[in-house]
Amino acid sequence: MKPEERHLFIEACFRRPVERTPVWMMRQAGRYLPEYRAIREKYDFITMYKTPELVAEVTLQPVHRLQVDAAILFSDILVIPEAMGMALEFRERQGPVLLEPIRQVGQIPSLKPVEPETDLNFVLEGIRLVRRELEGRVPLIGFSGAPWTLATYMIEGGASRNFGHIKRWRFGQPDALHQLLERISDAVVAYCRAQIAAGAQAIQLFDSWAGILDAAGFEAFALRYVRKIIQEIRTPGVPIIYFARGVGAWLPRLATCGADVVGLDWQVDLRTARQILGPRMALQGNLDPTALYAPPPVIRQLVREMLKRYGAGSGHVANLGHGILPDVPVEHARAFIEAVKTESPVFHNTSETERLP
Amino acid sequence: MKPEERHLFIEACFRRPVERTPVWMMRQAGRYLPEYRAIREKYDFITMYKTPELVAEVTLQPVHRLQVDAAILFSDILVIPEAMGMALEFRERQGPVLLEPIRQVGQIPSLKPVEPETDLNFVLEGIRLVRRELEGRVPLIGFSGAPWTLATYMIEGGASRNFGHIKRWRFGQPDALHQLLERISDAVVAYCRAQIAAGAQAIQLFDSWAGILDAAGFEAFALRYVRKIIQEIRTPGVPIIYFARGVGAWLPRLATCGADVVGLDWQVDLRTARQILGPRMALQGNLDPTALYAPPPVIRQLVREMLKRYGAGSGHVANLGHGILPDVPVEHARAFIEAVKTESPVFHNTSETERLP
Repeated sequence: MKPEERHLFIEACFRRPVERTPVWMMRQAGRYLPEYRAIREKYDFITMYKTPELVAEVTLQPVHRLQVDAAILFSDILVIPEAMGMALEFRERQGPVLLEPIRQVGQIPSLKPVEPETDLNFVLEGIRLVRRELEGRVPLIGFSGAPWTLATYMIEGGASRNFGHIKRWRFGQPDALHQLLERISDAVVAYCRAQIAAGAQAIQLFDSWAGILDAAGFEAFALRYVRKIIQEIRTPGVPIIYFARGVGAWLPRLATCGADVVGLDWQVDLRTARQILGPRMALQGNLDPTALYAPPPVIRQLVREMLKRYGAGSGHVANLGHGILPDVPVEHARAFIEAVKTESPVFHNTSETERLP
Repeated sequence: MKPEERHLFIEACFRRPVERTPVWMMRQAGRYLPEYRAIREKYDFITMYKTPELVAEVTLQPVHRLQVDAAILFSDILVIPEAMGMALEFRERQGPVLLEPIRQVGQIPSLKPVEPETDLNFVLEGIRLVRRELEGRVPLIGFSGAPWTLATYMIEGGASRNFGHIKRWRFGQPDALHQLLERISDAVVAYCRAQIAAGAQAIQLFDSWAGILDAAGFEAFALRYVRKIIQEIRTPGVPIIYFARGVGAWLPRLATCGADVVGLDWQVDLRTARQILGPRMALQGNLDPTALYAPPPVIRQLVREMLKRYGAGSGHVANLGHGILPDVPVEHARAFIEAVKTESPVFHNTSETERLP
């Protein structure tokens, strides 16, 4: 480890000048990689993220294969509900399922406080292994689910169409929901702090289901807890990224989340977002993941448009607007990474900014 | 029919003064009604919307039961792909499925132009029956799917997770997609004109899948066609409503759609939307459909907040932000309708606006 090393990704997160836009992909350690599928054939998903050696191996795959500018820990957001005492099962095609979802307020007190060093040591050990193997080449991003999204899984039990159970709480018994969100927030704070202590150099909070809320609900049940968590886990030099999906309607509100970086899905126009959020935070994103189905020359053109929408100067971490899809050809993923690396310097060379595309 | 009659719903669509906010619900002729389920037990869904007498009966059920301020034709947006020659099947739990989705550009020329008077006479006859039975009590809203949403079904074949097929077209072969959207637009124009000629007193265009697009794609593949259709079907006295789901990030763009009314999902804050869209169009919506799971006193409170977010004056048609859910108790639906009727007059009584809540 060379802690003194200057990483493009970290610099851009803090909106400091960089020579080109850094790039990584959500779910970059995933099924689109043949080497990931080879491991996945031997182990089930839960075994994979609970075995530090496998965590490290899978986390590093995209770094080796695609030279992304950051690694992100291979894990799952449901480790927290599980550590709180909820039984978890992974079902093929259906994904993870919490077997006894929370449907009564009375179930909340039985949830355990999380002690990351014991309950989630496999994650922390995975982080230490990755850091050792990375030798400072690129920084490692740790992550956690945000409270609203975790509560959604904990109440619904798994994927849902209308999120009827948690919405009944949101509208019918908001106090119970706040009680649950408090508990989850405590766990998220402990978990993120432990990840940072183990060596995570950035933290991303995933709020994948924020977009099912209404405007007032986003503030009350999602943002309020995210803001508190960010305050409590803040560590010098460790940028915090808040990625919420489907929240393009609430950019002015999002500007108050307190993160260093806001991750945006592909709905959001980067120029608009920079106008609203730019003065306070860096932006991460946001190419439509399905754009990687297009042939590489089209991908290059779409990357150029994305960079142009953000415009000149630092404060942009290129990424997809959501996780890379399992059926994207590796060559297309490579085209995306390459395009950002070769097309972005012009947006950072101040002497050239006058003749920007 | 009393054509001279003044309808609250039509007046509000044109932002003319009204004594209270009119209200109806998307999917108000649906499974939450026991009398709908009674008919649905005897007939399959396709038979229901293809039999004018059943169309009329089901369309009128919520008018009788809940005294909504507008009826909306009971039908399905997939009548257009079917009239264009695509085989349609309705599967329990899965919903409608187009058996041979369009996956090759070469399939487009085989799509038939739609002649509503012959291909879709069951709809037009249904409209005539409903108008006769309504005797002018409330206006009847006709509807069609918007081209992007119809293209989504026609290419994917049914429900989809990532919309990979149409997204491949969007990014990889946009010309082919435009060719398909042109065809669909022609059909939608003919269909809406025929509905108006048969007696529809307003038209709503449903763009349920607009939100899966990116910002540039929304303009190029959705809005552009909607704008053209609205110009071509415009008829004096017949308001046109454009309802697109998941587009709260694009309100300024939405302001250019040319509709008289924009339908909003529950993500959008009505105050923000009125600031951006209000000078040009009326707003329809937008209570979270899951809010109707809450007990009636909470529903009343949420309705009050919705009315307050829109504020004083005409130009608001109260509605849910999406279709009413099948497991909502009828009494909760009634509470929603009643609350709008009793809580809204204060927002329209100009002498009282000074002491608005």
